[in-house]
This record gives sequence, structure tokens and C-alpha cells, in this order.
Amino acid sequence: MNRNNANRYLGVAATLAVATWVVASAHVLTGASDDDRAEAGRAKNVILFLGDGMGDSEITIARNYQVGANGRLWMDSLPLTGEYTTYALQESNPALIDYVTDSAASGTGWATGFKTSNGRISSIAGTGTAVTRLETILELAQKAGFKTGNVSTAEITDATPAVLDSHINERGCQGPANMSACAPYKKENGGPGSIAEQTVDHHVNVILGGGKARFDQVITGGPHVGKTVIASAQLQGYTVVFDAANLATVSGPRVLGLFTAGNMTLEWSGLQASPSPGSGLPTGQTCSENQRPANEPSLAAMTSRAIELLHDDDGSDSWRSHDDESEHRRDRGFFLQVEGASIDKQDHVENPCQQIGETIAFDRAIRVGLDFARHHPDTLVIVTADHAHTSQIVPVPSLTDTTRPGTLSTLLTKVDKSMMTINYGTRAHGQSQDHTGSQVRIAAQGPQAGHVVGVTNQTDLFHTMARALGLE
Amino acid sequence: MNRNNANRYLGVAATLAVATWVVASAHVLTGASDDDRAEAGRAKNVILFLGDGMGDSEITIARNYQVGANGRLWMDSLPLTGEYTTYALQESNPALIDYVTDSAASGTGWATGFKTSNGRISSIAGTGTAVTRLETILELAQKAGFKTGNVSTAEITDATPAVLDSHINERGCQGPANMSACAPYKKENGGPGSIAEQTVDHHVNVILGGGKARFDQVITGGPHVGKTVIASAQLQGYTVVFDAANLATVSGPRVLGLFTAGNMTLEWSGLQASPSPGSGLPTGQTCSENQRPANEPSLAAMTSRAIELLHDDDGSDSWRSHDDESEHRRDRGFFLQVEGASIDKQDHVENPCQQIGETIAFDRAIRVGLDFARHHPDTLVIVTADHAHTSQIVPVPSLTDTTRPGTLSTLLTKVDKSMMTINYGTRAHGQSQDHTGSQVRIAAQGPQAGHVVGVTNQTDLFHTMARALGLE
Repeated sequence: MNRNNANRYLGVAATLAVATWVVASAHVLTGASDDDRAEAGRAKNVILFLGDGMGDSEITIARNYQVGANGRLWMDSLPLTGEYTTYALQESNPALIDYVTDSAASGTGWATGFKTSNGRISSIAGTGTAVTRLETILELAQKAGFKTGNVSTAEITDATPAVLDSHINERGCQGPANMSACAPYKKENGGPGSIAEQTVDHHVNVILGGGKARFDQVITGGPHVGKTVIASAQLQGYTVVFDAANLATVSGPRVLGLFTAGNMTLEWSGLQASPSPGSGLPTGQTCSENQRPANEPSLAAMTSRAIELLHDDDGSDSWRSHDDESEHRRDRGFFLQVEGASIDKQDHVENPCQQIGETIAFDRAIRVGLDFARHHPDTLVIVTADHAHTSQIVPVPSLTDTTRPGTLSTLLTKVDKSMMTINYGTRAHGQSQDHTGSQVRIAAQGPQAGHVVGVTNQTDLFHTMARALGLE
Repeated sequence: MNRNNANRYLGVAATLAVATWVVASAHVLTGASDDDRAEAGRAKNVILFLGDGMGDSEITIARNYQVGANGRLWMDSLPLTGEYTTYALQESNPALIDYVTDSAASGTGWATGFKTSNGRISSIAGTGTAVTRLETILELAQKAGFKTGNVSTAEITDATPAVLDSHINERGCQGPANMSACAPYKKENGGPGSIAEQTVDHHVNVILGGGKARFDQVITGGPHVGKTVIASAQLQGYTVVFDAANLATVSGPRVLGLFTAGNMTLEWSGLQASPSPGSGLPTGQTCSENQRPANEPSLAAMTSRAIELLHDDDGSDSWRSHDDESEHRRDRGFFLQVEGASIDKQDHVENPCQQIGETIAFDRAIRVGLDFARHHPDTLVIVTADHAHTSQIVPVPSLTDTTRPGTLSTLLTKVDKSMMTINYGTRAHGQSQDHTGSQVRIAAQGPQAGHVVGVTNQTDLFHTMARALGLE
């Protein structure tokens, strides 16, 4: 709690005074040895699964559709569970609360242990465009010798992955050509550059997702001026791949995979929700699955490949067979974040099938993580969300019911063979539905997992992961 | 799970064939002795706190308003937490799921371990008006010698309290004059009578709540024909009280407290939500507290008095001081249900202040239970909800934003001094907002509390409580 207050504001003052990079807190880096890891509660690896916008309602919707109301998803199987709060601060006055967070502020919360305001990427609330910096769990892990990975179905420069390896005042500043709101961060102004540039310059070992268009942009300052961010990555030792086939065989200490220009293709398709009585009546729509092209890897495939690359430099999948002493000696352990990004994005645009498809794809990625943890019990696995969202399960309307205020869609569930109606009621049809402010589920297994039980704050997750890796 | 299937449908068949009382399951009544209670995981007392419609969103709303986003309610303090699913069955075909439950079906779930259809009170789905019966945790506890109590801020004949001590096909059949939909259950037809009659005939030790008008109705069959239900209660040994002062001094083995004609008076008042941009702008409304008249007891006061009466026949409050050997010898233990009923009712009618006030009043009752458990660690305390509901925390609208589809109200929170907007978006303004189908929080402490962790089914709560009391 002291860390949340005293150090943050110290950081603000220093930053505003000298406009240089400021580390807002003094994390104690113990450089934990192998012996230390034998201590109770120490994890060798941390895998954080972050379902963007995956509130309890979104989980229930996906479970009901895919495996039935009494079925269980992989994410349901984690043994320790709680709920955490997800609010942000107000940029105009960070002493006040914004009860509905976005992914940038909430991500900063779990990634750094500090609250910030909406739109900010691991930077300090209330500091305008000044260059500020809140040190992240990935940065701390990297300094302590852990390998690091960052995986998302969004552009890899989107808010959730960005909070781990970037610091900027506005989440939109994703590529060198998108910096109008973030001038002091531009490289020609002595700043660290856009999110794409910071991501590459950070030397995260494995970076997989969408957003290639950001990396095709040309750098406007610094030693790699005039080159694309991809060229800059290659100069910094990255092997860059653009499709599933090359991801499957790539190796090396630094891998950048960019599989689409923007966000990755959705897994499922189906009818958008529409005004009352909504789409899908009278029988309930059935979603069209398997919509992702084969040249794009699934989130599960990206997760599997990231673990292989992080766990074992030679890229083999030996972790699936057994854990041996030699592996332990050569492998320092890793921190990996895996985001199911388009749960949120499809909730915003009132698409229940697409939202469910992304939740199920995320669940399949979790299965990969749990399978790894089964062979490597010194792994802390966490499954949570960054904020709640709009979609709610409501009573099935009659065909003639035109009175509901939200937009609706009715689905026929796969196992229960029953009708389920989803309501989107925070914004008018065609506008972007809102995030909501409810506490959301957090589940965990492995070292330090017990800290997620009960009611915690999103910022507590930073400390749970840091403790597990021996970083505080 | 076998219990959920084989025995239930056995019950249906038998009921339909002979139209007599059927116990749908063969609970093993061990009549646990004092020695048995020393076994690991055995509780002497169970207190179930049931927040009607108190989903994670409703909890967060109340916390934000009352103690701030980083504050904690009493209900937040229970150490073991999970989420459970709350669906119902379809009456027309109980093989199909109704993903949005009401309080009757969900209450039947946690009270009996069996799913049923909406509207049913511990009776079997798909059986029409036939007299059927699913045995309840209160009935099992009573048979095993535990004292029993049932407390609510609703009419005590409302669905949630009713599921513990009544069996009827339609929740509306609350008094002898309300039986049009439940003819086979009428006493003159050989049935058990209305919910009010069954409640009294059940000899629950402590019954406290609203709904006096139901008990003023005249019984239409059986030995007490022509008398009011209150008169019948008195003939059966009940001391009946009608206000807080008499509740404070009443004693005896059977106490019936009926404090209002209908539902009990709300704790707080405030502006109803209204169409976009909603009520409360531009500064945020502040709720008016302390609206309940002094002659009506608070839920906390009813809870405290119920525990005193159940724990110790002499009605003294010795449990607050310490636990002693003589107490253990004379007291068999108890099962008590405490419902915060109007969280749900005020969510239905778009009243955020009233909804929050009822949540806080429920939280104060939980504090009483936790205080008792602190002195009596052999008490299983559970805090949960029966289903999720409509209210969501959304971004604060501008004064000129008339585009939101739901009804809204903006509040100024007490500790954070920040604006919080609540959206009601499942039904048009003035209609009754819908229950929603999300999984909801369940929290516990004491013997068997670990069973609430993870993802469970609402019906699992029956088994958790039954195991704790040694009833299965």
C-alpha cells in the first residue's frame, strides 16, 4: 500500500521536474538463485492468462453455449478463486476514482501494482504528456534473469500487451506514425518511441500477435531512423515470422511473430445482436466455428509455441514429456502473458457468437498452460480479466416483444439444446458497448496462488506474481 | 449427481401416480450425536446469508458507494470464495435449461439440492399443480434435532424463505386466500395449504420478517378452518410479535415475528434511475439513509435476536461473551437462513439508493453472524446470492447524452467522493428489470467452507450445508 502511494507521487514529482525517465518505485531485485527457488512459495515460471472484458457474465455465457450450464471449462478447473476490483483513477484529478476502467489503466494496475487513469500505458496518472514510467512485472522479471513472453490475439501494441513492455501517456500511440498525442515520447524528442518501438527495444524474448501494420511504419528518430520497426527488430536480433507455418519452426533467443496487419481473425462468426426481440429467434442461432484462416495460429498454438521457446532455447517440445534435471539447470524460468483480446472487442460490437468463440479459444490456450503446469508444478498459473463488460444473460423474449431497450440475440446452446438470450444494454445499437465496473473473477494454481482468494485489488496481482518470482 | 437425477424423477413418477406427498430423496438421517460433531468438518451451527439478486455487480456498487472502491464490506471478509451457477429447468420440459432463474427455483436448488423450474417452491419441475415435495436442508436439520430459523426483509412467505419450509407449485400461493393457482395444495383438498400455513405448521423455531397480511387471512380447511394463520400459529405454541420492542423481549421455543403487512420498509431512499442521461446529474445524488421506522427491526437486529433465540432458549445474549461447556451441553445447534430480500426488489424497480441501502443492511446482518462465529468457530457461515441482476456500473454520461438505451442514475460516493453511474438496461423504464444469468459469488468460513471455492453449482450448496450438519 505504501508503494501505491508514496512512491508513485514521488515518481510524478521527479518526472515533472526533470522530464526524464523515472522509475517510480524501488523494487528490490534479489537476483534469486536456484537455491532461493526452493523456498516455499517460489515459482520458476508465471503464466498470466488475461481475458479482456471476460467478466463473470462473459464466462457464464461461453460455458452455457459450449459445454452446458453444468459443464466446465478449462478455466473453471483452477483450484483457488476470488474476485478482484478493477477501478481506475481520474486523469484530471487522480485523487478521484473512475469506477469503469479500460484495459490500459487496469493493465497498468496488474502489471505495475499502481493505479493509473484510462488510456495510460504504465505511466503516471495526471501527468499529461510528460514522459513517466511505472516499472512492470515483465521488466522486473527480465532484469532478474527470467525469460519473458507476451502473446495476444489483438495487435501486440494494443493496451493489454503494451502495459508490460511500454510506457506512454496514450494507448493510441502504437506505431511511429501514430504519435500525435504523445509528442514527448517520440524518439526525435529524446523519448522511448511508440509502443511498437518500445516493444522491440525491450528485447522481450517472445512477442506473438497481430498488428504488423504498426511494425511496418518507419521510425522517425534515434539510431534506426528511417527503418521500419520490423527492420529495427531484425537488427536487434529478432527472428520475425508472419504465419503459423514459420511460427512452428522458428527458434532463437528473440522471436517476433506478427500474423495480421491489425487484430487477428476471429475464431467464430454469427449474427450480431439487434433491437428487440433481437436476432436468432425463434429457434436460436448456432454459431459458425472454424473461421480463422490456417495461416494464422490459434491463441492455443501461440501459447504452446511461446512456452516452448521460453522454456527451452532449442525450441523442442520436450516439456510435454517430463521434467528433468538438465532442463532445470539450463533454464532460468519465465514470465509469460497470454491475452484473449477479442472477447472484449466482440462484446463492444454486440456479437455474441464471436465473443463466445474468442472465450473458447482463450480457454483452449489456458488448457495448454495447465498442461505445462502439470509437468512443471513450480509454475504459477493465473486466469483473470481486466474488467467486466456489457453482455448479460436475460430471459428469452417472445417473437413479438419489441419493448426491450437493449440489443439482443438468442442462441441455441450446443449441449443443453436450450435457448439463451444475450442482452447488450449499455449503449445504443451500433455504438460501442461500455465496459462495466463489477469486480471480476481471478483464479490461480501453483506457488502463491492462495493470494487470489477472497476480495483483492487488481494491483495486488502484481505483488502476487512478484512474490512468486522472488522479485519483492 | 445421482441424487439430482434418479431420485428426482422417481419422485415425479410416484407423485403423478398417486398424488400424495412424496419425499423425492432418501436422505440418510444419522441423528448425529455430540460425539459426531467432534469429527473433522462437522459444524454445530449453519448460518446462510442470502442476498437476493446480489450479483458481483450489486456487491461492487454497494462497496463503491459506502466504503469506497478500495474499502471492504463485512461480506468481503469471509476467507474462502468461489462462484456458483444459478440456472433453472424449463417447466414445459425439465430436460431443457432456463438460463435465468428466479428466487423460487434457485432457492429450491440450494435448499434441496435439486433443480426445479421458475416459480416452484421446493417442488418438482414439470408436474403441474400436483402435490410434490423436495426435502429441504431446514427439514433435514429439524428432523436431526437442530433448531431452525428463517429471517427475511421480504414477506416471510416470499420465495426465498418459503423454499425452506414449504412445498408448492407456484410461489404466489402465499396465503390461504391466494391459492387459485395451487388448488391441490389447499387444505380442504387434502393438501398442506398455502406457504403461510405450511410455514406455521412446520414449527420452525424462529420466523421473522414481513408479510403479516398473509397470516391475517382465514384458513379454509383442516383442523384450524375458519381461524387466521396467526391464530393457528398461537394454537401451535408460537409467541407472535409485531414490532421491534416486542421482538427484543420475546422468548419461547417458537417465535413468529411479522413486522409489516407486506415487505419490510426500505432502509434508504433516493432518486429512481431515469432515461439518458439519467437522474443525479450533474453532481451525483446522495442517498437518504435511516428511512426505516423504529418499530420495525433492522435485518441485523432480526439476525441477532434469531441467533439468541436459537442458540439459547432463555433469550439472553450470553453468546456475545464467551462459549462455555454448559452451553454446549444444552444446545443442539441450529440452522438459520437470513435473506436480504429487497436488493433484488429495488434492482427490479431501478432504485440504486434503495438497492445499496438494502445491501448495506444485509452486510450489517452478516457482521452479526460473523461476530457470533468468532465466539463459536464451530459455525459454518455462508454468504451468497440466488441469482445475478440487471444493475451495472457504467461510464458517467455527459449532461447532454440522451443516447443511452437503459435508465441511469449517477451517485456521489461517500468515501471516494467520486461519481458512479448505474445502468438498468434489460427492460424499459417502469417495467420490472430482469434477473440475469451470470454465475455469482459464494463465500464461506467455518467447517466445510472449502467446498465453496472454485466453480460449483447452486445445488452443491445444499450438500455443503448438509455435510457440515452431518445430514449426509
